[in-house]
Amino acid sequence: MLALAAIPLGVNVRCLDPSPDAPAGAVSELTVGPLDDDLALRATATGAEVVTFEWEGVSAAATRGLELDGWIVRPCPAALAASQDRVDEKSALTALGIPVTPFVAVDDHAGLLVALDQLGTPAVLKTRRGGYDGKGQHVIHADADADAAWKDLANSGPLVLEAFVPFDRELSIIAVRGVDGDVRTWPLTENVHRDGILRISRAPAPDMTSDLQERAASYTHAVLEHFEYVGVLTLELFQVGNTLLVNEMAPRVHNSGHWTIEGAVTSQFENHMRAVAGWPLGETSARGEVAMVNCIGALPNPSSVMGLPGVHFHRYGKAPRPGRKVGHVTVTAPDAHTLAGRLAALQAVLPPDRG
Amino acid sequence: MLALAAIPLGVNVRCLDPSPDAPAGAVSELTVGPLDDDLALRATATGAEVVTFEWEGVSAAATRGLELDGWIVRPCPAALAASQDRVDEKSALTALGIPVTPFVAVDDHAGLLVALDQLGTPAVLKTRRGGYDGKGQHVIHADADADAAWKDLANSGPLVLEAFVPFDRELSIIAVRGVDGDVRTWPLTENVHRDGILRISRAPAPDMTSDLQERAASYTHAVLEHFEYVGVLTLELFQVGNTLLVNEMAPRVHNSGHWTIEGAVTSQFENHMRAVAGWPLGETSARGEVAMVNCIGALPNPSSVMGLPGVHFHRYGKAPRPGRKVGHVTVTAPDAHTLAGRLAALQAVLPPDRG
Repeated sequence: MLALAAIPLGVNVRCLDPSPDAPAGAVSELTVGPLDDDLALRATATGAEVVTFEWEGVSAAATRGLELDGWIVRPCPAALAASQDRVDEKSALTALGIPVTPFVAVDDHAGLLVALDQLGTPAVLKTRRGGYDGKGQHVIHADADADAAWKDLANSGPLVLEAFVPFDRELSIIAVRGVDGDVRTWPLTENVHRDGILRISRAPAPDMTSDLQERAASYTHAVLEHFEYVGVLTLELFQVGNTLLVNEMAPRVHNSGHWTIEGAVTSQFENHMRAVAGWPLGETSARGEVAMVNCIGALPNPSSVMGLPGVHFHRYGKAPRPGRKVGHVTVTAPDAHTLAGRLAALQAVLPPDRG
Repeated sequence: MLALAAIPLGVNVRCLDPSPDAPAGAVSELTVGPLDDDLALRATATGAEVVTFEWEGVSAAATRGLELDGWIVRPCPAALAASQDRVDEKSALTALGIPVTPFVAVDDHAGLLVALDQLGTPAVLKTRRGGYDGKGQHVIHADADADAAWKDLANSGPLVLEAFVPFDRELSIIAVRGVDGDVRTWPLTENVHRDGILRISRAPAPDMTSDLQERAASYTHAVLEHFEYVGVLTLELFQVGNTLLVNEMAPRVHNSGHWTIEGAVTSQFENHMRAVAGWPLGETSARGEVAMVNCIGALPNPSSVMGLPGVHFHRYGKAPRPGRKVGHVTVTAPDAHTLAGRLAALQAVLPPDRG
């Protein structure tokens, strides 16, 4: 989707992906290789004016190496590195005065017990590094579950225990910073996850106060300034009453921002490309009421989806398998009532998610 | 731009283009070969579920040959053939009761004098076939110019003389018909040409009556039904007072419809792909007030353009040369007043057109 946004801007894109079947191959020159492979990264970056990434699994050390050798890497490797470790990430956010989910680093079984004592139950034991779509996590409902959780994750590297936040809802805020320091923020997005996978996003998030919108924007602003960040950054948030807690920071375009393709004046993808190329940013306001529904593990019948009003269908060209995001549907409407009707009609033609 | 719209829909695209540097190469599998070459067409179409085209210079006979051999060609070769000959085209439109620019076929010098006698001056002598962006045309201001016009075009194949219509403005109407016969029409677009090249399009066309919009839609409807057409079709129109005259029919997505990418709920490109793939069509209403400015022969500074509000920049990846469309800028705004201000700001940063 980044390359699709880059092409009209006249930007030539070369991508590195471990799979020869990567969807990026349809819209860019594809180099096939591991994302943590220094040689593959350098081969891909050769001749590039700027290097960027759309997944935080890229080796931060390798991107630092590219920088040392004269490449321009946007966003900066420091933000990438911070996002790859839940403790580093939350520590950096806390240092910026941003409220985060309470957390305690866990280095051994004894440490887990101490952490449980501090945070209480329920709590979530997570790997500090890696983890995606709910993987590498174990919910501890009561102290008695601690051993099972430890057994599950003890061999997955360093861990962190996070308080289980009884949130009212999940939100995300997507922002972009240009080379000139200009910052733009899209409206807060409401997200519904199930089994750790994003199912539906809704923007602008309903029942939102301008106070919360401004507070979320101020958090992204602080992070973007701190890292002198260039490109799109996403903060995943929990809303608890009138409080916003940052759960995670993603140094990239985000699934919960896919609605911006048809639903905002400028999409997250176009603005990320504008930012990393050093161009001025586009407007980020929403164009009406928007929802984005992920297709998980299975695709609906294209005719059934496209037969509905206000609907745009996106297929990723990936083979369906349980739990895999293989497409999404964006629904736009002039008002919330119309959107609700259109979403109901869409749900009726979608197959059940697989995974 | 068609391939860019096809990719999110999950459609794989193979293109035939005479140039190995064709922009389509960035977003599709590119076959390099002449557009009137039967073998090249067949090589490109091998394995395709459907064949389409975005330029009326493709050989109609060759597309008929593909159809005879079992390929599905959308839109139909008959519409392509009619659009390739100004006399056939205007005859077909007239037979459908659609008013067209007065015209007389010209086969020889004597025929030109007879035609001039019928239509009077000023009139425009044109080649019946070929011609693009004002090429293959000669304006006859007075009878005395007839010899010069004849000398200019006598060796360019069969000709047609068309009355010079003192139009108030040029408009175009873009419509799409699905396999199921569903027809959708975008709002009328106002176009400004200079030296036969489209410079600016504005949509919805200002000061438009619903009567004119409906009449233009009824013309496209008649043409689409007549040919059992599938895909996007454009009629170029002259408005003279309260009359609409069809000047040309283009069996394809159209430069004057580029505004639909950001300015309509569904773009002409997405709806063309939906139609030829046999899927339901998307809504064609405008999203606010829109203008599209072509970049002719030279590109503006990207930062200057992208620094303006409501602006989207499209570069085609073509080497600039005089008269060549190398990109376009779309300007969107919530109202006409804001659009006028944004357009003025854009004009201030655009280089003068070359050609």
